[in-house]
Amino acid sequence: MTALRIELRSSPEKIRLPLGFSFSAVAAGVKVSGWPDLALAEAAGGASAAALFTKNRVVAAPVEVGRATLLSTGGRVRAVVVNSGNANCATGRAGILACERICREAGKLFGVPAAEIFPSSTGIIGVRLPAEKIHAKLPQLIAARSRSQRGVLEFAHAIMTTDTRPKIASAQFQSAAKPVTILGVAKGAGMIHPQLATMLVYLFTDVAASSRELRLLLRKACDHSLNCMSIDGDTSTNDTVLLLASGASSARARDAGTRKKLSAALAAVCRSLAEQIVSDGEGVQHVIRLFVEQARSREEALVVARTIAHSMLVKTAWAGADPNWGRILAAVGRCGVPIDPSRVQIFIGRQRVCRNGIACAFNQRQAHRTLAHPVSDIRVQLGRGHHAVRFLTTDLTAEYVRINADYST
Amino acid sequence: MTALRIELRSSPEKIRLPLGFSFSAVAAGVKVSGWPDLALAEAAGGASAAALFTKNRVVAAPVEVGRATLLSTGGRVRAVVVNSGNANCATGRAGILACERICREAGKLFGVPAAEIFPSSTGIIGVRLPAEKIHAKLPQLIAARSRSQRGVLEFAHAIMTTDTRPKIASAQFQSAAKPVTILGVAKGAGMIHPQLATMLVYLFTDVAASSRELRLLLRKACDHSLNCMSIDGDTSTNDTVLLLASGASSARARDAGTRKKLSAALAAVCRSLAEQIVSDGEGVQHVIRLFVEQARSREEALVVARTIAHSMLVKTAWAGADPNWGRILAAVGRCGVPIDPSRVQIFIGRQRVCRNGIACAFNQRQAHRTLAHPVSDIRVQLGRGHHAVRFLTTDLTAEYVRINADYST
Repeated sequence: MTALRIELRSSPEKIRLPLGFSFSAVAAGVKVSGWPDLALAEAAGGASAAALFTKNRVVAAPVEVGRATLLSTGGRVRAVVVNSGNANCATGRAGILACERICREAGKLFGVPAAEIFPSSTGIIGVRLPAEKIHAKLPQLIAARSRSQRGVLEFAHAIMTTDTRPKIASAQFQSAAKPVTILGVAKGAGMIHPQLATMLVYLFTDVAASSRELRLLLRKACDHSLNCMSIDGDTSTNDTVLLLASGASSARARDAGTRKKLSAALAAVCRSLAEQIVSDGEGVQHVIRLFVEQARSREEALVVARTIAHSMLVKTAWAGADPNWGRILAAVGRCGVPIDPSRVQIFIGRQRVCRNGIACAFNQRQAHRTLAHPVSDIRVQLGRGHHAVRFLTTDLTAEYVRINADYST
Repeated sequence: MTALRIELRSSPEKIRLPLGFSFSAVAAGVKVSGWPDLALAEAAGGASAAALFTKNRVVAAPVEVGRATLLSTGGRVRAVVVNSGNANCATGRAGILACERICREAGKLFGVPAAEIFPSSTGIIGVRLPAEKIHAKLPQLIAARSRSQRGVLEFAHAIMTTDTRPKIASAQFQSAAKPVTILGVAKGAGMIHPQLATMLVYLFTDVAASSRELRLLLRKACDHSLNCMSIDGDTSTNDTVLLLASGASSARARDAGTRKKLSAALAAVCRSLAEQIVSDGEGVQHVIRLFVEQARSREEALVVARTIAHSMLVKTAWAGADPNWGRILAAVGRCGVPIDPSRVQIFIGRQRVCRNGIACAFNQRQAHRTLAHPVSDIRVQLGRGHHAVRFLTTDLTAEYVRINADYST
C-alpha cells in the first residue's frame, strides 16, 4: 500500500483532480469590481452529497434552499452554483425565490430537477441578489467548464470575496492499486470587507459512497479541522461545507480499508484548508496553534480553547508577540469549566511560562521571539483528564479593526 | 419627602461624604511611575460590609483573603487598604502571605484584628507584590486620612491603574428629615496597559445596616448596573465590589421606607460608576447603550446583549460608526437563544434598520450620524416575551489593539 500523499500547493500543475468533476467560472457583475463572481462545479454523472451548514439561527436563502433540496433528493447533486459578492441573506421571501430561480434555470440547462443544483452565496448581507445577472450568465458558465487544474483555480478564485489568495488542497491514495483523489476548495472566514463573512468549503472525491457514508466521513473530518478554528468567533449566516462523491473511481467507501484511508485523506485536506483560511484571515499577523490538553472531555477542551481564542486581550497580546500568560490564565478561569488554577500549566513554544497556576522563571526574550514567528504553538494543560484538542486561531491586529471599521456607505 | 438627589460630578466641592468615613492615599513605590498607589478608607467606628467578587476561577490573593475574612467576621470592616500597580495574582502561597501581612500590620496600627482590614490589589498579574514597600508606608497612610472631598479624590486617584480619570458618584436622600449619603468610588475595567485589568468599586454609606441587608441591596444594585456592562468580555481575576455602612446617620436599612430609597440611591450611584467606567475604557470612542427587549427572561436578554457586545465584528463596525445591522443580526443568530429571525427588529437611534429580520429602507447617513455620537442607543427586539435589559458597552478601536498589543518586557 502506498502511503497517503497530501499536496497542499495551489499551483495548477500540483493539485490532483478527482474523476467525474469539471469546473468553471465567469464574471456576472454581482461584484462591483467586475472580477469573476459566479462559479460552477459539475459532476457529469451526478454525485452523492453530504453537507454541514452554519449553526447560526439566521441563515441565508441558499442555506435554506440547499438544506431542503439535499433532503428531498436523499443527497444527490449534479452541480454546485456559487456566487460571491452577495450573501442573499436577510432578503426574505424574495431571496428564497431568487435562489430557487437560479437552481431551476441551471437544472433546465443540465436536464435535471432544480433540486439537484446546490446553491451557495457569499458577500453582503441584506442586499437583494441580482438573480437576473446570474441567470443571464448560466449558459456561458456551463459552456466554459473543464476537467483541468485551470478550471479548479478559476472556481477557487471566483468564490473569493476579499480573501487574498485561493485555498485549494488535494490528497490521493491507492485503493486496490487504483488512485482515489480528494480535492478541496475553500474561501476564507476572514471578514475583509464590511458585511462580508462566510466560510465555503467544497470537497470532491471520485470514490463511490452513499450520502449517509459521506455524512459520517464529513462530520468526523470537520470536527478536527474546520470546527477547530476561529478568527474572530463570529459565525457566518452562510457557512457551508459540501462533500461530493462522483463514484468515477472504482473504489468504494463501503470497503473498510478504503474508508479508513479516505477518512485520513479527507481529514488532511480539511486540516490544510483550515490552515489556509486562518493564515489568510483579515489583518492576521500571527497564527496560533493552541493545544488544550488534560481536559476531562473533548468538549471541555474545546470550551477552554474557544474562550482563549476569542479573548480580545489574549489576541491583542499575540499581535504584539507578548508572552503575557496571565491573560491566558484569566481566560481559562472565566470559561465556565471548574478548573483548579493550581493544576494549570502553560507553555509558549517549548518553554513553560506558568507552573501550577503560578508565575515561573522563563526566558522572556525567547518567548517573545517564539510568538513573533508567523505560526507558533501555545499549550495549556488543565490537569483534569486525558482529552485534548488542537485549535487554530489568530491574533487581533489594528489592521483587523481598520478593515472592519472602514465605513463604506 | 425630598426627592432623590444624584450627584455625578467628581469635583471636590460637589461630591457628598457619608458620615463615619475618612480617606487617604500615598505613593509607596509599587507603581514604577512614582504616582500614588496605596489608598485607605477607614470607618472609625467600624462598618457592616458586603462584597461581590470576580466569578473567575483564577482569583488574586486579596480576593481570597478578603472573602475569607468577611466570612470570619460576619461582615465587619474597619478599613480598606488598596494598592495599585500589582494585582498580587498568580503569586501562589507567597502572595497570600504578603496580603495577610499587610492586613496584620494595618490591623495592629488600628488596634483591630487583621480580619477587619479588607485588602485589594490591581495591576500586573504574576509578579511578586512588594509587601515591604506597602508595610513601610502604612503609618504615613493612616496619619494622612481625612474626612474631606480631597481625601476621597486622593483615594480615587491612587486606585487608578491606567484609567484616565477618577470615577466618583454620590447620592443623598432624606430619611425622617435627616440626610443619608452614599458615596461610590471605582476604577476602570479598561485594559489600558498590558496585564492590567480590574474593576474595583467601593461604596460607602452612613446608614445603619446589617451585613445581610447590605448583601441583598448590593446584589440588586449591581445586577442592573455593574453586571450589565462590558468593554472586552474579559473578566478580571481581581474584580471586587465592596459596600460599607458606618451607621453614623440615624437612618436604618431595616426601615422599609429608608430601604427603598437606599436601594434606589445605590442603584443610581452604581449606574453612574458603570457609565464612567465604560466611557473611560481603553481606546473607546463610542459608548453604546444596548437595549435588548421582548426576551422570554432577563437572563435570555443578557445572553443576547453579551453576544452582541462581545462580537468583534459588531464592535469594529461601531468604531467606524457603521450602521451595519447585518452583523448584529448574525450575532443574535449565533448566541444560543432559539430566536426566530423573522420576529427580530433592530433600531439605531430612533430609526428601524431591520424589520422582521429583513432589510428595510432607512436613512443610512442619519444612522451613521447617530452612531458617530459619543453615546448612542441600539435597540434589538426579539419578539419572544416581555423581559428586557439595558447593557452598556463600547466599540473596539485600533487604539485598543495598539494599547493592548504594545509589548513591554
